[in-house]
Amino acid sequence: MNADDVARCAQLALLLEVSAYPKPGNVDRTHDFVDTTYEHFLASSVAVYPVLREAALRSGRGGVGELVRRGVEESMRWQSGGNTHFGALLLLIPLVMAAGASHSTQELRKRAAEIMRNTDVEDAIELYRAFPVAKVKVRRDITDLDVNAESSLEEIRNRQLSLFDILSISASYDNISRELVGGFEKTFRYAELITGFVIRERLKVNDAVIRAYLSLLADEEDSFVTMEFGKDKSRYVKERARRIVNNGYNRAEAEAFDRELIKEGINPGSSADIIAAALFIAILHGLKV
Amino acid sequence: MNADDVARCAQLALLLEVSAYPKPGNVDRTHDFVDTTYEHFLASSVAVYPVLREAALRSGRGGVGELVRRGVEESMRWQSGGNTHFGALLLLIPLVMAAGASHSTQELRKRAAEIMRNTDVEDAIELYRAFPVAKVKVRRDITDLDVNAESSLEEIRNRQLSLFDILSISASYDNISRELVGGFEKTFRYAELITGFVIRERLKVNDAVIRAYLSLLADEEDSFVTMEFGKDKSRYVKERARRIVNNGYNRAEAEAFDRELIKEGINPGSSADIIAAALFIAILHGLKV
Repeated sequence: MNADDVARCAQLALLLEVSAYPKPGNVDRTHDFVDTTYEHFLASSVAVYPVLREAALRSGRGGVGELVRRGVEESMRWQSGGNTHFGALLLLIPLVMAAGASHSTQELRKRAAEIMRNTDVEDAIELYRAFPVAKVKVRRDITDLDVNAESSLEEIRNRQLSLFDILSISASYDNISRELVGGFEKTFRYAELITGFVIRERLKVNDAVIRAYLSLLADEEDSFVTMEFGKDKSRYVKERARRIVNNGYNRAEAEAFDRELIKEGINPGSSADIIAAALFIAILHGLKV
Repeated sequence: MNADDVARCAQLALLLEVSAYPKPGNVDRTHDFVDTTYEHFLASSVAVYPVLREAALRSGRGGVGELVRRGVEESMRWQSGGNTHFGALLLLIPLVMAAGASHSTQELRKRAAEIMRNTDVEDAIELYRAFPVAKVKVRRDITDLDVNAESSLEEIRNRQLSLFDILSISASYDNISRELVGGFEKTFRYAELITGFVIRERLKVNDAVIRAYLSLLADEEDSFVTMEFGKDKSRYVKERARRIVNNGYNRAEAEAFDRELIKEGINPGSSADIIAAALFIAILHGLKV
């Protein structure tokens, strides 16, 4: 698969993810956040294409951190809605790099994990350069490396921390970091789930994405919600999602859940990012619209 | 502006156009056609990126027909909803080629017109190769070159017809052909209109696109509607759009009009294509989301 094919799979994944509705608590085609709209996500998905293509061309030659930072910069340059794709890019870049040189799911997964393990101090520095660009908040009480302090860059160098090292720290409280250092376990599992919904249950891609998203919410507490709104809220979101899943993904309940989360401003962003990466794998392996 | 920048402007135009709602009679984020869905348009917008980029790199060195044909092939390869972007690609390819080498609106418009005038027999042949790929229908009672007959290719060669020559024939009944041989008059006018709505009237991009689309419907009969449903219908669509425009682009009326057209299966596709091309010009010249 050539670089443009891989990049198109990734871009289509971003577009199908953000378009899927009703996606409780996240921007979708039917509603915006106050400052971040559906159109901002469309523009950001367009913006990152050249970086995705570059990642596919590099296929394993390193530079994860730089590519994530450049992706975030392009995303912010093309739209004014703030952070749209930071988490999704973090997951996609190593997967896209691996996809450029892989011929099977197994190989892809092995390579992507390897790319993450081989990251170095420069990758970590680049990630820390990307944080302020996207104005990403990170819990300061757990990591001792403040993402908004210049001094963190020096400390990363002094302690010779690789990107993998840093994400290994945050993996204890952030689902995306856990994917990145844990071999993309959920990403691949949900790729299979989405494909199964479409192929075996003949669902529309939109509905397959929504079911996968609800299943992920029901499966683990969204770490972005935990960080922003506390443990009680993320537990509540998980339990609420589980009831909807157990009730056969009831559409009316999903819509009510969506209204509730939007009203409270609670957005399970990490789960949406993981579903975007899962969609990439599914499309790469043949899912069609 | 580099090739990736130009291609991104064009891709974003396709996405913002198809997403804008309520867009009477056409696919938008809130409704699909029976066989062609919003997701098919998303996938097609992703599919054509490499061809748009290639067009921007060529900047005026010819090959309009080949690029349109390749764009249509990519579009059809990435989704199963049939023809989504034939008309839009026809308009966009020469504009994208011109944009790769232009520094002002005036220069862009001059170059794009020049690119069309310089088309040759090969460009015409390539267009005729693209028709069956996208299963595009064309009125047979006007042009004597059946788009689905092999013999047409031979006849184009025998009569040494350029793409410009062929479009000059169809310009009498097709608004897109008229744009292509007439210097993109409406495309540039509606680009200004969209920009004006956003800058001066502070409308959201979505609403600016809808107003421009309704204005275009009110301004001239959609030639796709004329071809498919007859003169009475296209006149009716125009008059109905005019009433909405005169009534301050009344939203409820636009929604009722949308429901009516969707119910009858009447889609003013040519107008949507022209608005997509106009959006490209607007974004190229600084319109932001």
